[in-house]
Amino acid sequence: MSEVIAVARAARVASRALALATRAEKDAALHAMADALLENEDDIIYAGNADDLRRAEAAGTPANIVDRLTLTPERLAAMAQGLRDIAGLPDPVGEVVRGGVLTNGLELRQVRVPFGVVGMIYEARPNVTADAAGICLKSGNAVLLRGSSSARMTNEAVVEAMRDAIAASGLPADVVQLVPGESHDSVKELMRARGDVDVLIPRGGAGLIRSVVEESTVPVIETGVGNCHVYVDAAADLDMALTIALNSKTHRTSVCNSAESLLVHADVAEEFLPRITAAFQTAGVVVHGDEDFQQHGAVPATDDDWGQEYLSLDISAKVVASLDEAITHIQAWSSGHTDAIVTDDQRAARRFVAEVDSAAVLVNASTRFTDGGEFGFGAEIGISTQKLHARGPMGLPEMTSTKYVVVGDGHVR
Amino acid sequence: MSEVIAVARAARVASRALALATRAEKDAALHAMADALLENEDDIIYAGNADDLRRAEAAGTPANIVDRLTLTPERLAAMAQGLRDIAGLPDPVGEVVRGGVLTNGLELRQVRVPFGVVGMIYEARPNVTADAAGICLKSGNAVLLRGSSSARMTNEAVVEAMRDAIAASGLPADVVQLVPGESHDSVKELMRARGDVDVLIPRGGAGLIRSVVEESTVPVIETGVGNCHVYVDAAADLDMALTIALNSKTHRTSVCNSAESLLVHADVAEEFLPRITAAFQTAGVVVHGDEDFQQHGAVPATDDDWGQEYLSLDISAKVVASLDEAITHIQAWSSGHTDAIVTDDQRAARRFVAEVDSAAVLVNASTRFTDGGEFGFGAEIGISTQKLHARGPMGLPEMTSTKYVVVGDGHVR
Repeated sequence: MSEVIAVARAARVASRALALATRAEKDAALHAMADALLENEDDIIYAGNADDLRRAEAAGTPANIVDRLTLTPERLAAMAQGLRDIAGLPDPVGEVVRGGVLTNGLELRQVRVPFGVVGMIYEARPNVTADAAGICLKSGNAVLLRGSSSARMTNEAVVEAMRDAIAASGLPADVVQLVPGESHDSVKELMRARGDVDVLIPRGGAGLIRSVVEESTVPVIETGVGNCHVYVDAAADLDMALTIALNSKTHRTSVCNSAESLLVHADVAEEFLPRITAAFQTAGVVVHGDEDFQQHGAVPATDDDWGQEYLSLDISAKVVASLDEAITHIQAWSSGHTDAIVTDDQRAARRFVAEVDSAAVLVNASTRFTDGGEFGFGAEIGISTQKLHARGPMGLPEMTSTKYVVVGDGHVR
Repeated sequence: MSEVIAVARAARVASRALALATRAEKDAALHAMADALLENEDDIIYAGNADDLRRAEAAGTPANIVDRLTLTPERLAAMAQGLRDIAGLPDPVGEVVRGGVLTNGLELRQVRVPFGVVGMIYEARPNVTADAAGICLKSGNAVLLRGSSSARMTNEAVVEAMRDAIAASGLPADVVQLVPGESHDSVKELMRARGDVDVLIPRGGAGLIRSVVEESTVPVIETGVGNCHVYVDAAADLDMALTIALNSKTHRTSVCNSAESLLVHADVAEEFLPRITAAFQTAGVVVHGDEDFQQHGAVPATDDDWGQEYLSLDISAKVVASLDEAITHIQAWSSGHTDAIVTDDQRAARRFVAEVDSAAVLVNASTRFTDGGEFGFGAEIGISTQKLHARGPMGLPEMTSTKYVVVGDGHVR
């Protein structure tokens, strides 16, 4: 048996005990994990993370990636607070999703249960290590964590602190484990561990997600690639449109719910294009535009631009002749994450909402609202862009399956 | 573009119109499809099906498979009635799963929407062709049907009749299509058509399902392999246990919810084993047993037997020392479909329900109740044995995804 499978089987055993834990037991473990992160600040920040940072700098890693990798006392405190916040959320396990009595007197209930063993594959952010552990523990799932090897020492210190705390609070430490091995082979094994791992959730760039989706036999929840559109309709309030387009693009560019493409109805182009291109210029946004936008200083857009997730101060932009053309363009190019319309026309809004097939469809609001925190879920393990199981921001209930419980009195067919 | 992709893209276009169809329009199409099956009885039974049967007999196909393939006027009428029954069920599309107003005034609703394009891969039963078309149409999904090539002529006649009826009722005919090509290559292409096909549902034997799960990049819902257990507890009413064990095994052996394994607590073995083995013998059931059962005429069981889905008048059987041993055995060998306990002990029932991790867990009832019809779902596309998206019998709501609709008034972050 390979090391990866051995770890997955240990997770399975631990998951059985965790599945039976009460909310009080799980919340106590979450608070103990939070305490342990703070108590082990030295090991985590000044040993583990310092090591990783030295390696990263020696390797000439770009500054923005070094920044992502860096843990400070403030960031560690935020990770601890995240675990306490999860303790404050309701326990999804045991919730009766539906139930009743069948005509023959059989009692039927559909009840939320944990998946069992969840695999997380993610990139260099060490906060994901604590977040994912907390969300999985609260939803009754054992988790196998495979972070970036660039964050290996940090993740080891974080996981060791959390495992000690879990064991001290009476739950099996193996509900949180790092996947052993630094090579891609261990990721591959994780992806082929169908039966031993119930669900894989990749979090990171498009390349990582595509490779997991392609190679995994374990069911995958695809997350997070966002080519989000803002469509300014003929009936838009143009002040509102300006605010929403700017906020959607510039509030935070590195996240999946930032806007990457702007569509403007021809009827308002003459008035809106000078205003929005000036505002973008002031904000440092480079517009990759069609001919209309090029007349206002945009660089020429190619087909690549319509499909691009820039994650930077860039946006593609195009004038459309009609609502139909806007919807057709979005159907062709959207990644199915989030698309927004700005309009005061009720019929246009209704059509856009019905015909744009994305995880979130917004009317007169910034694309930045597609987020578990903003939606009130309290915790978010990622934003699903697939249609199976969960779509959009995934909170604790999305980290569960269900089982049917049927109680009879000697019923036979 | 390959033929399979061309068909999938035509399905996508058609699915967009279907997603916007009202319940009344879809129900009218379902009744028209039912009428068309009856009106085309000659083409379906005496041309298409007769052709397939001639080929099957010439190829020396076993009688039970020829029987499955055979359409009679009665069976065709049942297919038509199935479509009418689906018309009578509520429309899942548009259901608001959750909704409310966020603290900032944004209105948030999670609404059921169709997947889009569903692929069905199945074996020789022609009734699946009509069932799947009906369930997909009602849930707003275009369907690509890939039945067994042995049923090709029958399926073509059935699909042609249904497509004409759909078009006549004003919906696009391409919401129901056969996958072109008879070779395994076309199945393979269907399995790699991620993005063009939203979900694949294989229905058939373990081999078919395994190959789809292994090779598909399209998300798969695994269905139907059942190694179902009946556990007779120390506190069982033994008359009830006898009835439930017999019914679970013998009511219909070829289906996934029939029992394949019997576990008996040691405390009641002396009394129960003679009774159940005699009853099984009378019913023609071959018991593959441990040493205790062998003393009552069972043939020796090997490890292969504990994992076996016989789908025949065979059952594996074993005496266990405790409830713990029963649960551990089931955790090790069950396919996660359906497992039942017979007991009058509330604590034993509670533990079994909590610790057995299967799609359906039954107390004092036959395993045969795990069924969409029995559960009151009205229609069933299969029984999911995976934990992602849907688990257990899948009705119309399980054939949908959701989207978030967010309505604001110029909201930005």
